[in-house]
Amino acid sequence: MEETFVPFRGIKNDLKARLLCYKQDWSGGLRSGIRILAPTTYIFFASAIPVISFGEQLERNTDGTLTAVQTLVSTALCGVIHSVVGGQPLLILGVAEPTVLMYTFMFNFAKNRKDLGKELFLAWAGWICVWTALLLFLLAILGACSIINRFTRLAGELFGLLIAMLFMQQAICGLVDEFGIPQRENTKKTEFLPAWRFGNGMFALVLSFGLLLTALQSRKARSWRYGSGWVRGFLADYGVPFMVLVWTAVSYIPANDVPRGIPRRLFSPNPWSAGGYSNWTVVKDMLNVPPIYIVGAFIPATMIAVLYYFDHSVASQLAQQKEFNLKKPSSYHYDLLLLGFLVILCGLLGIPPSNGVIPQSPMHTKSLATLKHQLLRNKLVSTARNSMRKNANLSQLYQSMQNAYNGMQTPLVYQTPPSLGLKELKDSTIEQASRCGYMDAPVDEAVFDVNKDIDDLLPVEVKEQRLSNLLQALMVGSCVGAMPLLKMIPTSVLWGYFAFMAIESLPGNQFWERILFLITAPSRRYKVLEDYHATFLEAVPFRAIALFTLFQTFYLLLCFGLTWIPLAGVLFPLLIMLLVPVRQYLLPNFFKGVHLQDLDAAEYEEAIAISHNLSFEL
Amino acid sequence: MEETFVPFRGIKNDLKARLLCYKQDWSGGLRSGIRILAPTTYIFFASAIPVISFGEQLERNTDGTLTAVQTLVSTALCGVIHSVVGGQPLLILGVAEPTVLMYTFMFNFAKNRKDLGKELFLAWAGWICVWTALLLFLLAILGACSIINRFTRLAGELFGLLIAMLFMQQAICGLVDEFGIPQRENTKKTEFLPAWRFGNGMFALVLSFGLLLTALQSRKARSWRYGSGWVRGFLADYGVPFMVLVWTAVSYIPANDVPRGIPRRLFSPNPWSAGGYSNWTVVKDMLNVPPIYIVGAFIPATMIAVLYYFDHSVASQLAQQKEFNLKKPSSYHYDLLLLGFLVILCGLLGIPPSNGVIPQSPMHTKSLATLKHQLLRNKLVSTARNSMRKNANLSQLYQSMQNAYNGMQTPLVYQTPPSLGLKELKDSTIEQASRCGYMDAPVDEAVFDVNKDIDDLLPVEVKEQRLSNLLQALMVGSCVGAMPLLKMIPTSVLWGYFAFMAIESLPGNQFWERILFLITAPSRRYKVLEDYHATFLEAVPFRAIALFTLFQTFYLLLCFGLTWIPLAGVLFPLLIMLLVPVRQYLLPNFFKGVHLQDLDAAEYEEAIAISHNLSFEL
Repeated sequence: MEETFVPFRGIKNDLKARLLCYKQDWSGGLRSGIRILAPTTYIFFASAIPVISFGEQLERNTDGTLTAVQTLVSTALCGVIHSVVGGQPLLILGVAEPTVLMYTFMFNFAKNRKDLGKELFLAWAGWICVWTALLLFLLAILGACSIINRFTRLAGELFGLLIAMLFMQQAICGLVDEFGIPQRENTKKTEFLPAWRFGNGMFALVLSFGLLLTALQSRKARSWRYGSGWVRGFLADYGVPFMVLVWTAVSYIPANDVPRGIPRRLFSPNPWSAGGYSNWTVVKDMLNVPPIYIVGAFIPATMIAVLYYFDHSVASQLAQQKEFNLKKPSSYHYDLLLLGFLVILCGLLGIPPSNGVIPQSPMHTKSLATLKHQLLRNKLVSTARNSMRKNANLSQLYQSMQNAYNGMQTPLVYQTPPSLGLKELKDSTIEQASRCGYMDAPVDEAVFDVNKDIDDLLPVEVKEQRLSNLLQALMVGSCVGAMPLLKMIPTSVLWGYFAFMAIESLPGNQFWERILFLITAPSRRYKVLEDYHATFLEAVPFRAIALFTLFQTFYLLLCFGLTWIPLAGVLFPLLIMLLVPVRQYLLPNFFKGVHLQDLDAAEYEEAIAISHNLSFEL
Repeated sequence: MEETFVPFRGIKNDLKARLLCYKQDWSGGLRSGIRILAPTTYIFFASAIPVISFGEQLERNTDGTLTAVQTLVSTALCGVIHSVVGGQPLLILGVAEPTVLMYTFMFNFAKNRKDLGKELFLAWAGWICVWTALLLFLLAILGACSIINRFTRLAGELFGLLIAMLFMQQAICGLVDEFGIPQRENTKKTEFLPAWRFGNGMFALVLSFGLLLTALQSRKARSWRYGSGWVRGFLADYGVPFMVLVWTAVSYIPANDVPRGIPRRLFSPNPWSAGGYSNWTVVKDMLNVPPIYIVGAFIPATMIAVLYYFDHSVASQLAQQKEFNLKKPSSYHYDLLLLGFLVILCGLLGIPPSNGVIPQSPMHTKSLATLKHQLLRNKLVSTARNSMRKNANLSQLYQSMQNAYNGMQTPLVYQTPPSLGLKELKDSTIEQASRCGYMDAPVDEAVFDVNKDIDDLLPVEVKEQRLSNLLQALMVGSCVGAMPLLKMIPTSVLWGYFAFMAIESLPGNQFWERILFLITAPSRRYKVLEDYHATFLEAVPFRAIALFTLFQTFYLLLCFGLTWIPLAGVLFPLLIMLLVPVRQYLLPNFFKGVHLQDLDAAEYEEAIAISHNLSFEL
């Protein structure tokens, strides 16, 4: 992406590129059939559960003005609109923790003003949204997103890990709270006696660790040795939602003497109960807000705009990392413009706005890569089986697999490099052939083990389409109607799920992998090199890796510390944005250019191709 | 071992063979230095924890006549004597579950007789021990153990799995009981209110699963990637006892409102408290037992004798399986004779007798194999490093490693085949050399990675000595004095430990591995074959493996069902002994001889060497 600040050029480029593949975005999604439900359900849960929990938090902080109903509606509405008219359909939208913190602060400010108060809070927030949207329009039009290239791995992965830490913190605090008395509750109830609180806390530990461990295991089900393929496939695709069901069922096992309030479950009003609609008509109140507050709304609006500009772009960037080998173009400017419209819409409806979320967006891409892998695999396996049944030799087998592979490629106009995966496929097969010396003989299972070898051949590709995003947003919307069912989920299952999301977001994050590499025993480092690993492990001396990682860790802890400071904490993205100049001007003084390029490739630096010998300087 | 029934010949042969290596049994143990403490502590816990728990069970069943103090004393006393003057020092002795069941039945019988009663119970049990011992002498002298050859894997591994099931059952029942009110307790206490019982049960779940999962993980610590070698070594060696400490410490975290009785802890009188010695003078009471009961004692004695004959021999056999490549001889007859003396001794002291226990005995051998592996590895690594520093080529490197390896071999007179491990070592190294084509150049880390390659070279060998057995028995004895400390361990940690022992006893059990193989998805069977695996997997058609395993599983469930029948249940070993004729006369009608030989090698059948092609008939 060129770095241009000519007004509207970024938006125009984005629109032009995405329109070329718009039709395929839908047809491709529809063609994958029922299997699209696997990533859809997976992301739906990852999207809905935190949003419900944030809604509960918001309800406590705003005296019930905003609830899980509003956060769910915002997430569903923005999700549907973005998936249909948005640019990058891999990006998942939702109400995020920083939004909750900002709204909490705004509420505390508003409720103490005589001429604003609790009644006009949402109307005032509406004005803040209007200002925020204007700022976002400005940023989008002036091409602010083109500096996204300067956001290298350094910043993006640090942000990803910070979010993981915040999710884990939420899980731990939630669990600790299970031993205490919830704020809003009547402390006289049986279940808040010390004995039952102790039991509730211990039960919460069982439920949350149960969910965490089984959910983590089920994601690996496809590589299990045991059980039929059907069971393993089901668990890998739907294991996490399934485990939420299982542990919710387990939470109903204690009966008899145990009070109904144990374990604690989600708390939210039904959208159809009295007062549920009271705050859906904010527009008409907005003119009642005193002018001084309309103007003053600009101040929190700048903070939110900076936050959204950063969050939205980085979420989108993390969903489109190089390792995913995406074929379709990005759309940073246009998506930011659309976000502006969504913020206004939410403001006028009196619901908190949604923006691009981490870790859901990269999780979405990852789950679609798994889907594409399955689809490719099934096709190639059946093609290979067919060829072998016709006594094909290895070149014929390869030819037929190549044809099948080509048939599954998206025909796109703008596609510049010839598909990389194809070449890899060919090389692996040829190598296979010469190794076995069976180039011309009919291929049998001993030479080419269909189940095993095809797994090694397949490149990483992503099923890029809009259907999964649309469906998950619709499912989030249906949660509003299914509130009585959702309220059966124990809060402790939620905490387990938060921990699960934090852990799921770690693999593939090179910052995290470098931290692990640092604590790997020197005598075991060869094992890391035996596995699939990033090139820097071989190209960069250990000392440089260590220094770079320690610096990043220190910076991460700084950001984490900042989030603990009231109010100022919301601005932690500013600290992360500060990494851009640090990376560009400061770090090159401490690291060799080639090492920096390997550790944290930046397009604005020239890629100097110097081959390093494998060397571990300790 | 020849099958001979000439009186005393078996005992004489055993004694002659073991005396030859008696001195080395001690010197070898002492030479391994401080490291011997790793298997010692591991087995001490595996030995002491069930014995304490059985003692608690016995206390409830015998109205406090026998307690954990007596079971610990018996285990320690018999262990010390066996480790010093016993034949096979790999065999671990302890009070086992069947003994507890027999004693419970005997107590229930005695307490209802007017002329016996609770007072003369131990004296009467003393007579039973005398009769049992006489029967054991008879069996030992007449060479009954020489039919141990007829106890093939079929029976031994089935017995091992049955014990694992019983341990797991104990763990589950124990956990369920944590939710109820213990029998002997005052039900009015605060901690038995429904709310606290619920909390106690949930806390028990947390503690027992915590212990189980962390203990299982810590056993694998040596192959972890992370952490320094020191930490990994410590966790692998002492992780299980360490985790018992950790989870006991965790059990003290809840304070404040939580009653002192939560979580429940071990219950046992201190040996020095009043009445603790009341039953140590059984001998003088024995003459008060009415003659009719002295004679009648012969009936339970036959049952116990059959039980001990079987248990003791099979425990010894499982500790000496072929895979362990033991160098020193077995000692079935002499050990049975000694067991007779130990039974008399225990009977006269009024404590329940000990016999050879499963799974502790095979666990003992396995942990000594790990120790030997570590010792060999350290020696060879330092030798290899030395050679490489002197710029040796690969043949010189090999020569120096061979010398070091030879230096660590036990020089034994009777050793018939030249050490197998040596040959394997040579072959691997030579293959290594020719593969790399570096036969004469100085060796560097790239050609021969000391840390990695030596692991592949080492054969399975066991540090066979008496020291670990003696030390663990002494440590069990010291538990009697440390009772106030032991009583800090929560019972739930005990249940977790029972589950841990059940799971630890599974790997290496071919019956278990065949069950897993049956539930392995057909498309994943190649993965089993890629790992280290038993030969039958390739030599025997799948259908035969399946049939054989299903038969064995059915038989296992039959035995497990039998244990649920009151009284008769104690005789489940008879059902297992029935497998000997079944294996010898019935099974050959259903399976091909060669397949049977692969699945369940029996020395009395001729080994027909027919090479099979790799074939999986489904």
